[in-house]
Amino acid sequence: MSPLIPTPSVPPPDIVRCAYMELVVTDLAASRDFYVDVLGLHVTCEDADTIYLRTLEEFIHHNLVLRQGPIAAAAVAAFRVRTPADVDAAEAYYQELGCRTERRHGGFVKGIGDAVRVEDPLGFPYEFFYETTHVERLTQRYDLYTAGELVRLDHFNQVTPDVPHGQQYLEHLGFRASEQIQDSAGITYAVWLHRKQTVHDTALTNGDGPRMHHLAFATHEKHNIIQICDKMGALRISDRIERGPGRHGVSNAFYLYILDPDGHRVEIYTQDYYTGDPDNPVITWDVHDNQRRDWWGNPVVPSWYTNASPVLDLDGNPQPVTSPEGISELAVTVGADGFSYTRGGPAPGATTEQRGFKLGGQL
Amino acid sequence: MSPLIPTPSVPPPDIVRCAYMELVVTDLAASRDFYVDVLGLHVTCEDADTIYLRTLEEFIHHNLVLRQGPIAAAAVAAFRVRTPADVDAAEAYYQELGCRTERRHGGFVKGIGDAVRVEDPLGFPYEFFYETTHVERLTQRYDLYTAGELVRLDHFNQVTPDVPHGQQYLEHLGFRASEQIQDSAGITYAVWLHRKQTVHDTALTNGDGPRMHHLAFATHEKHNIIQICDKMGALRISDRIERGPGRHGVSNAFYLYILDPDGHRVEIYTQDYYTGDPDNPVITWDVHDNQRRDWWGNPVVPSWYTNASPVLDLDGNPQPVTSPEGISELAVTVGADGFSYTRGGPAPGATTEQRGFKLGGQL
Amino acid sequence: MSPLIPTPSVPPPDIVRCAYMELVVTDLAASRDFYVDVLGLHVTCEDADTIYLRTLEEFIHHNLVLRQGPIAAAAVAAFRVRTPADVDAAEAYYQELGCRTERRHGGFVKGIGDAVRVEDPLGFPYEFFYETTHVERLTQRYDLYTAGELVRLDHFNQVTPDVPHGQQYLEHLGFRASEQIQDSAGITYAVWLHRKQTVHDTALTNGDGPRMHHLAFATHEKHNIIQICDKMGALRISDRIERGPGRHGVSNAFYLYILDPDGHRVEIYTQDYYTGDPDNPVITWDVHDNQRRDWWGNPVVPSWYTNASPVLDLDGNPQPVTSPEGISELAVTVGADGFSYTRGGPAPGATTEQRGFKLGGQL
Amino acid sequence: MSPLIPTPSVPPPDIVRCAYMELVVTDLAASRDFYVDVLGLHVTCEDADTIYLRTLEEFIHHNLVLRQGPIAAAAVAAFRVRTPADVDAAEAYYQELGCRTERRHGGFVKGIGDAVRVEDPLGFPYEFFYETTHVERLTQRYDLYTAGELVRLDHFNQVTPDVPHGQQYLEHLGFRASEQIQDSAGITYAVWLHRKQTVHDTALTNGDGPRMHHLAFATHEKHNIIQICDKMGALRISDRIERGPGRHGVSNAFYLYILDPDGHRVEIYTQDYYTGDPDNPVITWDVHDNQRRDWWGNPVVPSWYTNASPVLDLDGNPQPVTSPEGISELAVTVGADGFSYTRGGPAPGATTEQRGFKLGGQL
Repeated sequence: MSPLIPTPSVPPPDIVRCAYMELVVTDLAASRDFYVDVLGLHVTCEDADTIYLRTLEEFIHHNLVLRQGPIAAAAVAAFRVRTPADVDAAEAYYQELGCRTERRHGGFVKGIGDAVRVEDPLGFPYEFFYETTHVERLTQRYDLYTAGELVRLDHFNQVTPDVPHGQQYLEHLGFRASEQIQDSAGITYAVWLHRKQTVHDTALTNGDGPRMHHLAFATHEKHNIIQICDKMGALRISDRIERGPGRHGVSNAFYLYILDPDGHRVEIYTQDYYTGDPDNPVITWDVHDNQRRDWWGNPVVPSWYTNASPVLDLDGNPQPVTSPEGISELAVTVGADGFSYTRGGPAPGATTEQRGFKLGGQL
Repeated sequence: MSPLIPTPSVPPPDIVRCAYMELVVTDLAASRDFYVDVLGLHVTCEDADTIYLRTLEEFIHHNLVLRQGPIAAAAVAAFRVRTPADVDAAEAYYQELGCRTERRHGGFVKGIGDAVRVEDPLGFPYEFFYETTHVERLTQRYDLYTAGELVRLDHFNQVTPDVPHGQQYLEHLGFRASEQIQDSAGITYAVWLHRKQTVHDTALTNGDGPRMHHLAFATHEKHNIIQICDKMGALRISDRIERGPGRHGVSNAFYLYILDPDGHRVEIYTQDYYTGDPDNPVITWDVHDNQRRDWWGNPVVPSWYTNASPVLDLDGNPQPVTSPEGISELAVTVGADGFSYTRGGPAPGATTEQRGFKLGGQL
Repeated sequence: MSPLIPTPSVPPPDIVRCAYMELVVTDLAASRDFYVDVLGLHVTCEDADTIYLRTLEEFIHHNLVLRQGPIAAAAVAAFRVRTPADVDAAEAYYQELGCRTERRHGGFVKGIGDAVRVEDPLGFPYEFFYETTHVERLTQRYDLYTAGELVRLDHFNQVTPDVPHGQQYLEHLGFRASEQIQDSAGITYAVWLHRKQTVHDTALTNGDGPRMHHLAFATHEKHNIIQICDKMGALRISDRIERGPGRHGVSNAFYLYILDPDGHRVEIYTQDYYTGDPDNPVITWDVHDNQRRDWWGNPVVPSWYTNASPVLDLDGNPQPVTSPEGISELAVTVGADGFSYTRGGPAPGATTEQRGFKLGGQL
Repeated sequence: MSPLIPTPSVPPPDIVRCAYMELVVTDLAASRDFYVDVLGLHVTCEDADTIYLRTLEEFIHHNLVLRQGPIAAAAVAAFRVRTPADVDAAEAYYQELGCRTERRHGGFVKGIGDAVRVEDPLGFPYEFFYETTHVERLTQRYDLYTAGELVRLDHFNQVTPDVPHGQQYLEHLGFRASEQIQDSAGITYAVWLHRKQTVHDTALTNGDGPRMHHLAFATHEKHNIIQICDKMGALRISDRIERGPGRHGVSNAFYLYILDPDGHRVEIYTQDYYTGDPDNPVITWDVHDNQRRDWWGNPVVPSWYTNASPVLDLDGNPQPVTSPEGISELAVTVGADGFSYTRGGPAPGATTEQRGFKLGGQL
């Protein structure tokens, strides 16, 4: 296990929610096709190198920044904080953690004011800001509403080789766990952490990290997600439908994972549940329960476990990646060495039918 | 290729639609749990050995008969004809074909009057009837409407080793093709055939036959199908979700395949299209187009190609099965010897990305 | 009652389905905004005076023709027949009826070949044709699929002062009744008549006629209809939402009535039921049942009863209108002289609560 | 205007969300039929006089208590607070306000521990509690999921004659306004106030008060609400569908108002938007905008403005009611003296069409 991340003596910033992600893309026009023409995100503004996009119900400047660059990567995951003073708090917090920080009172991107960016203890680039330009909230602009309309940014998902230490750090930062995947030895393979009153603002997934697994947008209803699949079929880019649609075990959300032209993974997500009570029950899933990641037991494709986007340091260089020490959800659940069950069931010696395995031969 | 099926000189019966299937099940109580408690079909009547079930919007006596028996099999696929005289016509038609027929003026099952059963040229047990007891049509009984409500019987699907000859026979019987899957040599791997104004009342799929591939019920909307998956997850029988949900290429319907306790396959199906015009365009799909069976390119699991229910002869014995001669959709599209494409694409030598294959490594 | 319409000795044409309507509009640009930009119908072709539109799943040339003209009116309701010879049959049929007919072997509008137009015994302009240009069926063009997508032309609805005689005429022409509204004296206020296997291709509604009450397009799901309302709200044309959305008693369809810029009424409609069996049960509704036209008992607005589009004769002049003799669904069900009930209920003297009236004071 | 409500010097309790309502009903069996059999709420426990009900995704003991009593009334609106100490804070806060309070460390109803009830400055009975028994959260019990499933308690709505003073009091208590209806003089007719990150936990509506206007449950999707209407039609209780379904202008939610056997109003509600940011924009609607309460311009029935449930004091007696001084949304927007517009529009003298009024004659 990696060394314990220290606990700062100064209070953490009061984080409101995940707010936007900045992605470096290698072909801005191709990315625009995907995010604007296929997915229907709304352009707040754009120039030759950068496009600022937002969801239908957003009133801050953007939820996604696409920036042309040489290597596809996640440049930053940005969180909104409650007050301007919380930007100071964030800076002090990470400085005490010994992390590299950079403060820009004019902001790093258009539409965002005073902000601090950090290289966090897990190696991820985080930004904290309060100031932002308000833009037209398009909630009732049903004249713009597409059949697969994305209405909110929902969450980020990060890959890290040491989930338990990462969880400890994020909980001290003020996040609260809603669900987690563990084995019988109590090892945590993944954890979902929230500030706003949904299942998560970010999640940690075990694997080679730091890398960004995906960002997720919410739709209103399930048929909106099905339409996105149907449209990708019509455009003959169904090979970029990576996994789903399906119903998550964890979070109970209806989901879909698709890949942008650079392979950045985007989740479309709808209908998780309220988590705002102080004693919201934490749900723990057995890593061998094959309904944990898909409630219908449909298999998780290997690429979903293995692929993720590099993340950048504050100089814009990709962070080096570390592998987990002997822990792999893919290895313990898929293929010859792994197994997973539908119904749990009786002692060894029971037939496959009695145990309720999903047909292994299908993978 | 098998010998040509002769064309009778007498006119075929005027078939209205697929009407019901009789399934032999080995544990009637378990089957009742599945079809009534899980799927919500409505019981018209039942006794110790038999259950008669119908969909919400049906007014004839039943769409499905479950009969306790020693071997799981499809006992008959029954079609309704337009007039009582069409039962006579059916009997004469199959007698001229040299098929074994059995006429029962009182009907073979409850709720159905004068009927003829035949062992058809492909080895399938077909029934033709007009007379039936009308029962309460539950269309507006929203007090009985479940979240995954099945509203109509939609179609049958049959496995046969020689699809082209089977198609020829069924077209002479009055069915019209709506869609088909072929290779570049013009070999037909599957064909969809209709009498009512939908994509099919039955379909022929290449494989070891005669066997019954599935029967299909329609729902009103897509979320009804998702609910069936969700419920099977809640009941921890997700291992019986075999394939889907997804969007078919062929038929454009939103679909799901699930397995009953005996392994009989049931499709849940919604929103295909109107085919009632005399010149309704026939759609031909390339067997290598990986959106043909799932518009999103999600893989067809091998069991879906290989497994099907035995069918019975008129004595109630399983029909022997014949394999196709060198034709297999599974073989030509999956695994080391097969391939399928998302986008077609340029000449040999193009990269995988250019050709638009769905990630083969996921299967 | 008007004089009996005679029964021709020649056979009627074999009508397949309602196929298209030609509407005269007074501001073609405004109509284009409505049908193309608001409703999303697809333009097959257009010129300075005329726009040809079709639904997503249509493969014949069009379902709606908008033609610039001086007076808003319905110019023709066109039905497709099964064979070219059925156009001859239609011409002979109406000639024997003593109706004015006009045959054009090159068709009356683009995309339609040999056709006959008639002034039918009720004063309506009907067209019968077989030949049509096939166009791209957009069924799987989900890249074009809007959130309120219209997928099929479903039916016409005609206002006539003598529904019983009209019904008799249309039944002899080959239509079959699926549902009707009657009072306890057996007077029919409205009847739904079909050729294709849905509840109707056209309906007759009692009132000043001949006038065209509406044409109806189908959507896939209920949320598509809600989106149309939401979009009309966003465009601040909600004053053209005349009635609904709601659930019909008759037909069980989920519905919405909206008005185009000339006041032509358009229904959006989804999920009625299969009527293709020869003994499909006819449903009779009590004119005083307040769930007959809206299953939720929501009131029918008076304009829905009183307003309709003029229809043209073969010279393009509006047909004069005749009023019914003492029969009015509006009069017997609304306001001081009328009543309707939710639950039927006990003898006179029962309280309103016992009788289950919808709150009359709300209208 | 009523006298200013004083501002306590002690801090307000930290309210998490609206949690449950206790309703007095006059026929418990009839109410059980409605809330359990028709609406599908889940029974946590019940005895001869009382039924405790919860929504699918709830983990606290209940969201609704039905108690048999002589007069139909709302006995309490209960809010959950963040910590046990916040119950003390609530008690101190209302004592300083001079309100009558009652503290019960064992709770007032089953499943709720230490709680304080108050007669608040507007005359409403409020409860504040932290302790509650956790019960099974049924989120993934899709085997119990009905077609009209209610998944969360969403909000309360209160009628009070002086909305501005009420708003001032609730904002000091910690609520934040999300939307409001005002006239051009700045008079507020209604305001929506939240603690959790939705549009409201409660709202104030102008009228004779204190009375409880409704409580609201959330569904996942719009079709769930339509099913509730359809089911009420099937049960022939459509006369208890008071208003809707429709799309709210305020909140953007899809809604339905129905009446329980005592006339208590229940709203079914889905898909409002996130309000958790500190600078969430407040939306102000013109009282004359006829899309404010229904985005489609469908009329608000008068009973919706005039009827509401009495509320009880801490002795269980109905609170006396006071009328507003000359302010009535009903009066200014409906009928001969009122008006409302769809499109706003030009100066007086413009035609109705130009102004875009919804057809007044329909009301």
